Amino acid sequence: MHIREMMAEAEKTGNPSFSFEYFPPKTAQGVQNLYDRMERMHHFGPKFIDITWGAGGRIAELTCEMVVQAQTYLGLETCMHLTCTDMGEEKVDDALRKAYKAGCTNILALRGDPPREHEKWEATEGGFRYARDLVSHIRTKYHDHFDIGVAGYPEGCDDNKDEELLLEHLKEKVDMGATFIVTQMFYDVENFLRWVDKVRAKGIHIPILPGIMPIATYASFIRRANHMNCKIPDDWLAALEPVKNDDVAVREIGKTLVADMCRKILAHGIPHLHFYTMNLAQATRMVLEELDWMPSAHRPLKQPLPWKQSLGLGRREEDVRPIFWRNRNKSYVARTQEWDEFPNGRWGDSRSPAFGELDAYGIGLTGTNEQNRKKWGEPQSLKDVANLFIRYINKEIEYLPWSEAPLASEAESIKDELLSLNQRGLFTVNSQPAVNGVKSTHPVYGWGPSNGYVYQKAYLELLVSPEIFPEILRRIHDHPDLTYYAVTKSGTLHTNAPAEGPNAVTWGVFPGKEIVQPTIVESISFLAWKDEAFQLGSDWAKCYDADTPSRLVIDKIAETWYLVNIVNNDFHQPRTIFDVLEGLEASSLDIVPTPEAKTNGTTTTTTNNGVEASTAPH
Amino acid sequence: MHIREMMAEAEKTGNPSFSFEYFPPKTAQGVQNLYDRMERMHHFGPKFIDITWGAGGRIAELTCEMVVQAQTYLGLETCMHLTCTDMGEEKVDDALRKAYKAGCTNILALRGDPPREHEKWEATEGGFRYARDLVSHIRTKYHDHFDIGVAGYPEGCDDNKDEELLLEHLKEKVDMGATFIVTQMFYDVENFLRWVDKVRAKGIHIPILPGIMPIATYASFIRRANHMNCKIPDDWLAALEPVKNDDVAVREIGKTLVADMCRKILAHGIPHLHFYTMNLAQATRMVLEELDWMPSAHRPLKQPLPWKQSLGLGRREEDVRPIFWRNRNKSYVARTQEWDEFPNGRWGDSRSPAFGELDAYGIGLTGTNEQNRKKWGEPQSLKDVANLFIRYINKEIEYLPWSEAPLASEAESIKDELLSLNQRGLFTVNSQPAVNGVKSTHPVYGWGPSNGYVYQKAYLELLVSPEIFPEILRRIHDHPDLTYYAVTKSGTLHTNAPAEGPNAVTWGVFPGKEIVQPTIVESISFLAWKDEAFQLGSDWAKCYDADTPSRLVIDKIAETWYLVNIVNNDFHQPRTIFDVLEGLEASSLDIVPTPEAKTNGTTTTTTNNGVEASTAPH
Repeated sequence: MHIREMMAEAEKTGNPSFSFEYFPPKTAQGVQNLYDRMERMHHFGPKFIDITWGAGGRIAELTCEMVVQAQTYLGLETCMHLTCTDMGEEKVDDALRKAYKAGCTNILALRGDPPREHEKWEATEGGFRYARDLVSHIRTKYHDHFDIGVAGYPEGCDDNKDEELLLEHLKEKVDMGATFIVTQMFYDVENFLRWVDKVRAKGIHIPILPGIMPIATYASFIRRANHMNCKIPDDWLAALEPVKNDDVAVREIGKTLVADMCRKILAHGIPHLHFYTMNLAQATRMVLEELDWMPSAHRPLKQPLPWKQSLGLGRREEDVRPIFWRNRNKSYVARTQEWDEFPNGRWGDSRSPAFGELDAYGIGLTGTNEQNRKKWGEPQSLKDVANLFIRYINKEIEYLPWSEAPLASEAESIKDELLSLNQRGLFTVNSQPAVNGVKSTHPVYGWGPSNGYVYQKAYLELLVSPEIFPEILRRIHDHPDLTYYAVTKSGTLHTNAPAEGPNAVTWGVFPGKEIVQPTIVESISFLAWKDEAFQLGSDWAKCYDADTPSRLVIDKIAETWYLVNIVNNDFHQPRTIFDVLEGLEASSLDIVPTPEAKTNGTTTTTTNNGVEASTAPH
Repeated sequence: MHIREMMAEAEKTGNPSFSFEYFPPKTAQGVQNLYDRMERMHHFGPKFIDITWGAGGRIAELTCEMVVQAQTYLGLETCMHLTCTDMGEEKVDDALRKAYKAGCTNILALRGDPPREHEKWEATEGGFRYARDLVSHIRTKYHDHFDIGVAGYPEGCDDNKDEELLLEHLKEKVDMGATFIVTQMFYDVENFLRWVDKVRAKGIHIPILPGIMPIATYASFIRRANHMNCKIPDDWLAALEPVKNDDVAVREIGKTLVADMCRKILAHGIPHLHFYTMNLAQATRMVLEELDWMPSAHRPLKQPLPWKQSLGLGRREEDVRPIFWRNRNKSYVARTQEWDEFPNGRWGDSRSPAFGELDAYGIGLTGTNEQNRKKWGEPQSLKDVANLFIRYINKEIEYLPWSEAPLASEAESIKDELLSLNQRGLFTVNSQPAVNGVKSTHPVYGWGPSNGYVYQKAYLELLVSPEIFPEILRRIHDHPDLTYYAVTKSGTLHTNAPAEGPNAVTWGVFPGKEIVQPTIVESISFLAWKDEAFQLGSDWAKCYDADTPSRLVIDKIAETWYLVNIVNNDFHQPRTIFDVLEGLEASSLDIVPTPEAKTNGTTTTTTNNGVEASTAPH
């Protein structure tokens, strides 16, 4: 989506919006941490993010990589910075091509700071001299594909304080095809508003996005302001200087000052704020809270679909996914990366493309063996594994091998049932409660446009030990409303589902539209998912040395247990799916396996009192 | 669907089924009456119908035509008889080709009676001698496309009483590829059951469909039985002979006798009855009622979709239609006849094909001017027109120019609101009440498989006079849940619906399936429908002489009024769609127009007291 469209919408609806700026971190760990943070800050509700240009080889690559990551995997609308500094036309085109391929549709075209070693900015040979040349080049080459932003300097530029001349340059950039302006940071709001009026008087009517730098510490506040030649109003200094060594006080006072400034800007009819986050969440979040803009029950985060959309090239129309990857969003995006077409409105014949291989980047279990052992301890028995699932459901741990995100809040309503299942050794890998038509604005279950209703069929996906599996099947067959799929790592598929097509398990009814059916259960994708699910189990087992009880107990699950999913098609009945599993319990929960008990093809475990229990794989 | 599949289903589910046989009537009026009767008898719930072969030129054509009509327009699964009598191979192939093109998949292959002029049956030159040759020919030529039935003779055949030889012939026909047997009529049930056992003993295991002739009058009962050499049991004669001149008594006693016979057949494990209707409804209906097989609240007629499917070639997968033709089913089928593909599950891009022209057969107003004047009288004013709509809603008349069928029973729940609208001169052309998830087996709103839930958005389509149209728009705009389309005969489309795609107004949620969305509202088909709707108005006007008040008042509606449809997207609110029209009333309901009042471009009417009221067309 183009930023100018977002601005038009904010203006039309009167709902102010905001965006976040990030820069490429210097270390690999820093990059990983930033991705996690970007994902968390996604939930603050920014309209888009932008990523500064890392001038110079590796760091420029990283900008492009971050754009891919944000668009494709995090589903964040991204604006990529691009500068003339040190860039020949070829390098510019390469960066644009990468942005295009990532699905990015917004570029902020800048001249850029001079490289450190030079005192004064100089054009690269065969490169662009001015931002306006870059704007013109992008427009010529990509027509309307990219929305193009340019910098605005309310307090003058580093090497140019001539306001009139700068406005002249701005006008030139707009004439070349720029469609929005992002300003440098400022704290002098009166000057900014004066400058806005001058911009408008100059005949420039494209949206102006004021750059806001929240205050994290006194030192960084002063350093950044000085670096950017940004005037600090006297009253700000007077308020902050006395508490300068108390970071908490600085942030508290700072958030009030910044929020006040924001309110003045909004009152002037500017509907959008652009936050320079400095890759940090806290100071920005405090300002948003002060403005009462953080998502909450009365201001819910609008989600077009119940899962996070990828904004990768060609994926914007994607509106249906199997439920299986609900807790492994990135892996689903990666494994369907090569699909030419995404089903638009229904699954239909687009099921045919194969899912990508399990060894692709990011699909297996992430983290080092050591990190994973730290996360999940060293389970000695099924009971210990059960306790991990229980701790996950109790939100005492954030991840499980099968869940890359903390338990969804909608699971609250079925928490007791999930705990009971896991206590009994039925490990719940995935679930959703039944929802019988709540408003699409519902804080927990809602998604999609306003004035709609959303629905869910109760869904449960479990790892089930082979000795209780036959009884589960018997019970399911007695319930006309239940459909299931079940399979072991290498076994054949069991199912009672009708042959034709997918089962919609989440859907929404909206004004003037077809029924939207974003989440489904069906066999082909379940078989792709089961490979991944069992692989994740094996990966986890491999975090432990061979012949340790941890390795043995987890391997046994991965090698011999069933992965079972159950849908209760009667979405009026939230409990049936749990009732049907009532009283079932995996045996030998307490037993600590020993390597001697492992014989060829048959997993044998020695019980504490020396009696042998043998379970042939199904 | 193949008859053998229907039989397998009846056997599997234990739900007995039945079918009806019709023959081509001799007159055109007879054909029209039969179509109407077939459609009404469709609601009795037959699994299929069959149509006897009219040996000889025109009447053979008629058989083919009736198959097309039944498959394509009435949506009745049809079995076509085909005989060897008087048929060369070319004629047989021609008939098969026609059946194929009609979407027919079942043939009853018979030798046929000898033509009247001959005493003994003789093969036509270049034709087939025995039914088995015909069976073999159809199998060779069409492989598995057609299911092929053959005749069974429990009481011997006209020219052959040798049971063993007849069973031998039957075996030959089965060996050639026949897959079901329809027997001649009989009343001697003990003999029939004995015969069935002999058939089975012969190694013939395909389904046997017993032919049942309900008793209409004593005379026809005796005549048919004698004609078919069918033995009448003594107790039947004893019961019927004494009341032979009392048709009502004959039918009452007859239904009990026939129903008893049917029960004995069913008890013998035969799950299907084939009724020789003789093109009459009553006697068959009485037997079905006696068996408690007529659709009712506790035995609802199963409908796969809320509208009647066409079973024409290539149309079986069709599962979505615009709501506009709800009361003009045949016209919709005719106008989409040339479509290559029917949307499967969603409207999508298959909207592109153009709708057929209005002048195609059966699309305009049916009936002669005289018949229509008789049906609808000679309305003098809008009030008189309103009264017609009111009488239709009160089920005092069965048709309106815009409705080829009586008001649907679901309209009961909104009857008062519809009456009020029409009393106020807002003519309701189409409507459906809101339904917020009732069981798919609901006797009024239900459709589709069991264990599902069905939904409807409230829908209203009205003819609205131009002077109240602007106020309707104003009111709709105040309701975020309402979407509408409106247009005059030659005007541009008004709408507040979102641009993309159709609005699903009827949908169902079923076990293991995507959401089924069989009825939609969308602009392209609405524009095709409005041409038809206004044309029907003009056609009706033309039933009256020029310059008569009837012609003038109806023409005014067709020429200047708006066709408006409104959807209440909040299907939880059944009343809003009526509340929004509260208190509105067309003016001049009582005025009788005179020809002098018609001046160029402006319709002027003279009120009773001589004051002129002028309304410019919008």
